[in-house]
Amino acid sequence: MEKPLILVTNDDGITAPGLRALIGCMKEIGEVVVVAPDSPQSGMGHAITVDSTLFVKKVVIDSIHGAPHEYSSSGTPADCVKLALRELLDRSPDLCVSGINHGANSSINVLYSGTMSAALEAGIEGIPAIGFSLCDFSWEADFAPALPFVKIIVEQALLHKIPEGTVLNVNIPKVERPKGIKICRQARGNWKESFDKRVSPSGKDYFWLSGHYELLDKGEDTDEWALEQGYVSIVPTQFDLTAYQAMSHINNWNLNGQ
Amino acid sequence: MEKPLILVTNDDGITAPGLRALIGCMKEIGEVVVVAPDSPQSGMGHAITVDSTLFVKKVVIDSIHGAPHEYSSSGTPADCVKLALRELLDRSPDLCVSGINHGANSSINVLYSGTMSAALEAGIEGIPAIGFSLCDFSWEADFAPALPFVKIIVEQALLHKIPEGTVLNVNIPKVERPKGIKICRQARGNWKESFDKRVSPSGKDYFWLSGHYELLDKGEDTDEWALEQGYVSIVPTQFDLTAYQAMSHINNWNLNGQ
Repeated sequence: MEKPLILVTNDDGITAPGLRALIGCMKEIGEVVVVAPDSPQSGMGHAITVDSTLFVKKVVIDSIHGAPHEYSSSGTPADCVKLALRELLDRSPDLCVSGINHGANSSINVLYSGTMSAALEAGIEGIPAIGFSLCDFSWEADFAPALPFVKIIVEQALLHKIPEGTVLNVNIPKVERPKGIKICRQARGNWKESFDKRVSPSGKDYFWLSGHYELLDKGEDTDEWALEQGYVSIVPTQFDLTAYQAMSHINNWNLNGQ
Repeated sequence: MEKPLILVTNDDGITAPGLRALIGCMKEIGEVVVVAPDSPQSGMGHAITVDSTLFVKKVVIDSIHGAPHEYSSSGTPADCVKLALRELLDRSPDLCVSGINHGANSSINVLYSGTMSAALEAGIEGIPAIGFSLCDFSWEADFAPALPFVKIIVEQALLHKIPEGTVLNVNIPKVERPKGIKICRQARGNWKESFDKRVSPSGKDYFWLSGHYELLDKGEDTDEWALEQGYVSIVPTQFDLTAYQAMSHINNWNLNGQ
């Protein structure tokens, strides 16, 4: 039987240790092609490159542990997936995996996440897709404890199929031995930003964005709860954003002058 | 009674005719503050500016028809909302409106839309929010036929409240007299990109992204159908991306080695 074709991408860039760990793990399961940004793209959300040029080149980052075909692109994670599907791959991949991100993409962070944007882009195209993130922002983060969980999730996803219209948002706690895997909903939360205001040498006001995440949801069925307890969280995530439950309320508004 | 405070932003930039039209319309309803990007940000999705400086300045674009307080920022639409809420406004706005975008943000385009990203950012912060888009990409688009619909939607939203966890994605057809307003679901569709491959003077491969939208959904309850028929579409849009209906399927996977 033909090995599954697995497209690997990320948002931390093609040299990121998290990507390299994911490539190694995916080579045990399938034929791997990498298309990833040439520089970090964190916080890019679901950006795409419009009205600007996209550079792409074939690269060798690690001739022993890397994939036989790796491409780096000047584009965003979503661009990388589009490029892979339209230009670089000669058949449709059986799976797209994105990550392993250096840092959590749980809760509301899914919306800001380049990692998940790449997975969602593949999902929109009908490709089964999973985003993986480790709850450790460090470039030197230890991905080894995550890999057995990454592998079982990918194997089960290939076996059972991911439901249509859904991609998986997987977060892995920063612990030596995750306790297991939980299927979760996205916790409610937001960022309490603060802006550090400064003045440039030429007298212009500017700001640095910083802040902390505020969890607004103690539910034991949430990704944040699972991670806090030491479990790997999987949130099935959709790109139909319609709030169906809100439609009847708005249908009662007087919008058409009756 | 105090007039409602309305935060106005967009992704086409602070000089865009669509934004200027929206400002004029909102001044009939409330007290208006504008915080918008200093240059076009289309296709930025839900990007935020991390690890980079954000410039902000108070500006006067149109001393007669503009708002008394307008700020332009080097950031993305989501950055503009964060800056407004954390730094620039002295009280929480009663409403955030984004647009009017030059070009549709119906169907799957909600995911790529800077216009909707700003509205979603406000929604995450608990601010009622609406994104408006006109189905006409031209800088010279005629926003006049849209304004009565923008006004009634904003008035009804202030009166009846937008359901929690929901922001409105409003698209307006490019017609002289829209037939009315329909509450819709997000149509399924995707982009069939093509990449125009070229070689730079120095011999590097590069691409231009182009493509066309492909509608995969003929449902008469969709935004695309409503727009095609000449109606203004409102899709209540949520930022909880959990695919609840997929959870039971994935719970049957053998993830924990039982």
